[in-house]
Amino acid sequence: MPPRFAARMGRVAPSAIMELLKTAGSGEYISFASGLPDPALFPADLLGAAAERVLAKDSSGALQYGPAEGYPPLRDWVAERLRARGFAGGPENILLTSGSQQALDLAARAFLNEGDAVCIESPTYLATLQVCDSYGAAYRPAPQDEDGLEIDAAETALSAGCAMLFALPNFQNPTGRTLSAPRRERLAAALDKTPTILMEDDAYYDLRYEGRPLPPIGSLMRGGAALYSGTFSKIIAPGLRVGYLHGPPEVIARLTQLKQITDLHTGSLSQRLVCDFVTQCDLRGQIERLQAAYRAKRDTMLAALRTSMPAGIEWTHPAGGMFLWVTLPPTLDASELLKSALARGVIFVPGAGFHPDGRGANTLRLNFVSAPADKIVEGIGILAEIVRDRIS
Amino acid sequence: MPPRFAARMGRVAPSAIMELLKTAGSGEYISFASGLPDPALFPADLLGAAAERVLAKDSSGALQYGPAEGYPPLRDWVAERLRARGFAGGPENILLTSGSQQALDLAARAFLNEGDAVCIESPTYLATLQVCDSYGAAYRPAPQDEDGLEIDAAETALSAGCAMLFALPNFQNPTGRTLSAPRRERLAAALDKTPTILMEDDAYYDLRYEGRPLPPIGSLMRGGAALYSGTFSKIIAPGLRVGYLHGPPEVIARLTQLKQITDLHTGSLSQRLVCDFVTQCDLRGQIERLQAAYRAKRDTMLAALRTSMPAGIEWTHPAGGMFLWVTLPPTLDASELLKSALARGVIFVPGAGFHPDGRGANTLRLNFVSAPADKIVEGIGILAEIVRDRIS
Repeated sequence: MPPRFAARMGRVAPSAIMELLKTAGSGEYISFASGLPDPALFPADLLGAAAERVLAKDSSGALQYGPAEGYPPLRDWVAERLRARGFAGGPENILLTSGSQQALDLAARAFLNEGDAVCIESPTYLATLQVCDSYGAAYRPAPQDEDGLEIDAAETALSAGCAMLFALPNFQNPTGRTLSAPRRERLAAALDKTPTILMEDDAYYDLRYEGRPLPPIGSLMRGGAALYSGTFSKIIAPGLRVGYLHGPPEVIARLTQLKQITDLHTGSLSQRLVCDFVTQCDLRGQIERLQAAYRAKRDTMLAALRTSMPAGIEWTHPAGGMFLWVTLPPTLDASELLKSALARGVIFVPGAGFHPDGRGANTLRLNFVSAPADKIVEGIGILAEIVRDRIS
Repeated sequence: MPPRFAARMGRVAPSAIMELLKTAGSGEYISFASGLPDPALFPADLLGAAAERVLAKDSSGALQYGPAEGYPPLRDWVAERLRARGFAGGPENILLTSGSQQALDLAARAFLNEGDAVCIESPTYLATLQVCDSYGAAYRPAPQDEDGLEIDAAETALSAGCAMLFALPNFQNPTGRTLSAPRRERLAAALDKTPTILMEDDAYYDLRYEGRPLPPIGSLMRGGAALYSGTFSKIIAPGLRVGYLHGPPEVIARLTQLKQITDLHTGSLSQRLVCDFVTQCDLRGQIERLQAAYRAKRDTMLAALRTSMPAGIEWTHPAGGMFLWVTLPPTLDASELLKSALARGVIFVPGAGFHPDGRGANTLRLNFVSAPADKIVEGIGILAEIVRDRIS
């Protein structure tokens, strides 16, 4: 007899991005599709030295089971780091997670009943939609403009009732847009008046290439419940799978119980490698190297777009992060474009998948940090030719 | 406004064991409570050398995002390992997980609707109950005797309809009992006739101290759907958080989609450390060292129990694993016993928590591998005195 899956599995579907990543894994493509950082910038030697130190100093701890909430010195460090971003509290506000993806999944599992409404930026991070789908959420999408989420629309969604609001305020995946300071204030004030949980994913916070850091939405809230996730994936290495969630201690305590039944705890060795790196190595230098390299690549892609794209094509100018967002004329379909691009060795992610309702067929996401500079120029040139062919 | 958790959080409760572990973490107790392996047996130097090799050879892969299903060479290795245990198939049958705890959680999430019945051995692994609770499962508990799960009772449960049957056939946590060969055959045949998913957790397979290995239940099935989980936590180190799930390829493909939204993938570095260790180091030698050390400790605890416990107290004689199970006279309550034991510096886990229905108040679980041999003798002596006091 064939196994009968639970009903929720009807809402768990393969990710178009991951399927594309598999294709891209063959290495024959110029890939603007992935969410991968540039591996040339991983601090491999420093992490090798960190591994040596950690195993010499505390191999029993690094290899043993650990507390569900995470390695205490790393919780302390994250709490301090987030105080500098405006979040009060100490280690009791921090849950260390297996990447920030797990932070999203735990938050959704803890707060979403089937049918609950979730306010999202539209478009938004694909895996946010996948997680919310799996818990049977309904969506109240709010559009964005160049200053990020439109607050009037978000307020309307909140008034209609939302269990949760997902926000990616900095260099949003997929658009690269940043929520402006006044909008952060307004959104925080609106959230303070509701029981809606804010789930703020700030994975790209440190990858800022211009302008000054803005305060997280959650740090501006005075009453409501704010969760805030971050990760070491973008500034150290994603393969370690260490992220974190900040929230009120009573919420963190409950999420810790959920974390425990999910996978007991995040890797003991991984957490110690991260902790050693952030306390013993030059983290600021590592971040500055990433910023310089990614800024140059962003500028390369923006210049290539300006040089080669025909009139009528628009794109965002991200102040940080890894992605920019292209809007084609309404008559063009990015999935059709992808077929031609694949045939010519270039891949990207069509934009429709980042919307819960299939909108955005004429949009696409480009990762500007993965490919080498010359391939960025070559790949954008190819995309521009295809677009020109389609328009004419 | 205080945050409003999802209904399922009403079924997520703190683990008594984890609370006890925190107490035990102070190091002032003789602990028979934990599920911790002996850290003195972690192959720390070999793993240090493995880290050096892995980062020298493939730092980009070890630090980058990876496929949700796991690191291909390790999937290959696990598939081959499990062929030797009687499971057909290749890497397409394997999902690498963040410890076998995650394998349980993913399986339950994929197959359990709220209210679905799960057949469990009673008592069973505490975290199995916590996971099933969180998905709103109902239980059909089947009792055990010295040969493990009683098959008549399991057949009755299966006839009544079960979405899933959880089994821990080898050196079960918490009892240390092993399901006999004829019962494995009968259970496999019974499962073949139902749509019930078998979730077989075989975390302790390699920790066998006497007798010959028995075939997994799933390997004896001919029709039904069998999932089988294992882990590197017991034979290498739990702090790496690498386990695996074996199942039909079409089920593994669906669970991989679930794994992806849960935490993207298991740590890239951790998976490569495990893969390097099992292929480059003397895994057999490591397992034999563990077997020898744990066998000696088991024998120490059994001898101490024989020497010091008064008449009327019974305990299991595990052929492997980490735990044995003590049954007190029906008039004694192990939670009461624990209070006296705590006051005298000894901790263990009362048995009631391992039952879904609060039975087993007169039982308790003892970990025989964590404490040093002299502390085992001392701790059992103290427990015996307390029991004697209570009886008289």
